[in-house]
Amino acid sequence: MKFDTVSENRSFGGTQGVYRHKSEATGTEMTFAVYLPPAAEYGKVPVLWYLSGLTCTHENAMTKAGAQEWAAEFGIALIFPDTSPRGEGVANDEAYDLGQGAGFYVDATQKPWAPHFKMWHYITHELPELVFSNFPLDRDAQGITGHSMGGHGALTIAMTFPERYKSVSAFAPIANPTESDWGRKQFTAYLGEDRAAWAPHDATLLMRERGFPREILIDQGSSDQFLNLLKPESLAHAMAERRQPGEFRMQQGYDHSYFFVQTFMADHIRWHAERLA
Amino acid sequence: MKFDTVSENRSFGGTQGVYRHKSEATGTEMTFAVYLPPAAEYGKVPVLWYLSGLTCTHENAMTKAGAQEWAAEFGIALIFPDTSPRGEGVANDEAYDLGQGAGFYVDATQKPWAPHFKMWHYITHELPELVFSNFPLDRDAQGITGHSMGGHGALTIAMTFPERYKSVSAFAPIANPTESDWGRKQFTAYLGEDRAAWAPHDATLLMRERGFPREILIDQGSSDQFLNLLKPESLAHAMAERRQPGEFRMQQGYDHSYFFVQTFMADHIRWHAERLA
Repeated sequence: MKFDTVSENRSFGGTQGVYRHKSEATGTEMTFAVYLPPAAEYGKVPVLWYLSGLTCTHENAMTKAGAQEWAAEFGIALIFPDTSPRGEGVANDEAYDLGQGAGFYVDATQKPWAPHFKMWHYITHELPELVFSNFPLDRDAQGITGHSMGGHGALTIAMTFPERYKSVSAFAPIANPTESDWGRKQFTAYLGEDRAAWAPHDATLLMRERGFPREILIDQGSSDQFLNLLKPESLAHAMAERRQPGEFRMQQGYDHSYFFVQTFMADHIRWHAERLA
Repeated sequence: MKFDTVSENRSFGGTQGVYRHKSEATGTEMTFAVYLPPAAEYGKVPVLWYLSGLTCTHENAMTKAGAQEWAAEFGIALIFPDTSPRGEGVANDEAYDLGQGAGFYVDATQKPWAPHFKMWHYITHELPELVFSNFPLDRDAQGITGHSMGGHGALTIAMTFPERYKSVSAFAPIANPTESDWGRKQFTAYLGEDRAAWAPHDATLLMRERGFPREILIDQGSSDQFLNLLKPESLAHAMAERRQPGEFRMQQGYDHSYFFVQTFMADHIRWHAERLA
């Protein structure tokens, strides 16, 4: 698979790169970022996938999460994909939470979204093939995390492919989208009215049904302005009811912003690095 | 208030003492243990109350929790009370979970328990007066924790007196006793049939109603043999729904024993010490 280098910058002794390729999954040009730590000069390194939230591109976490410092220290690579297909000819909506910038990590089956909105397949199949073929990354040491809509993506993907993703965490995930206006609207648009098609994309429902075979880490700010949409209590209940190993942390006074994410980024990267070593 | 010294032993540079006194609250002789860290030689130190579980005396945690090492390091005192009145003339039951060794940290109002089973008053009023008058302890720096029935006690007491107990944590607490056979039976016996009298002694109900004004820490083993009685999922849901600051940790593979408690004791003592400093 071909790709172009948009930029590469030295960062904490490693390299922060931005790349672009023609995606078969989405039928569009897709941009993604990869951070390689200094350890990648000496061999393949573990990988942490970071999925972003609504309105984000590959760039938000790359520039605002403060992740490279800890990725360098723990010798782990970071991958920051985009959150949807983009561009002319790609369906969109005036709302910030549907269409471009709001792919919700599903494969759309409904008009007008189905031709391009295949973010599930892109994130779980196409982009992995590209990055493992072209960067010094250990395919057997993958973890996944994300923020908000990206936390939803990380949790649902990890619970679907627990053999592949050895570790999972999330920052303020959309935890129960089938019961939230961040979910029902988008799932109806992308997947149709049949709620059976929604269930594989709801972290709370997946937790009730199958859980994750290893520990998981969830951080949620107590002053998050979107608590009523995120529904952390549903996931907390499902985790405890299932006896899911891991930690659910309600962080006092933090909101939904990247100031929250960056505060706990070191914890999350250490969490993944310890489990991927 | 008078008390007798049963024993004092050097421990991690400090002193582990066991003491006995005549309690007005229970009308019996009560035994309790105090660990003073080395720092207590130089001035008053913060205090962590440790409430024990069913069948325990002051001795179980004192000998099996591995707490003194960390209390010494962090300069914090430990108090280990008994779990009920004991002795001849004190009501009892053949079951391990009612009567002596099973005070449930309530003040009984019903026959035959009312004359002696006043553990709420004993733990929250009488014993504090005794220890703060006789040991170099900082009354303004109190935290509280406990295991199982003692976790129930710690959480309900801390949420009732949040000004007094600056920090609270629990190991595998009985989290929702009004909905559990570890609770309904005892509350009926001690408090009567009126559930209104039970509500102030249920951590999940208190969490829903008022919470705790600072962070709390809960550890629960995923292989705990009493999960159906402890009902951690009820507390986890209530914490998240309230946006209660703190951490609910499901610790993979740990059971209900002191092997679980001692594994996470360092975390808990550090947690309290940081908040009582």
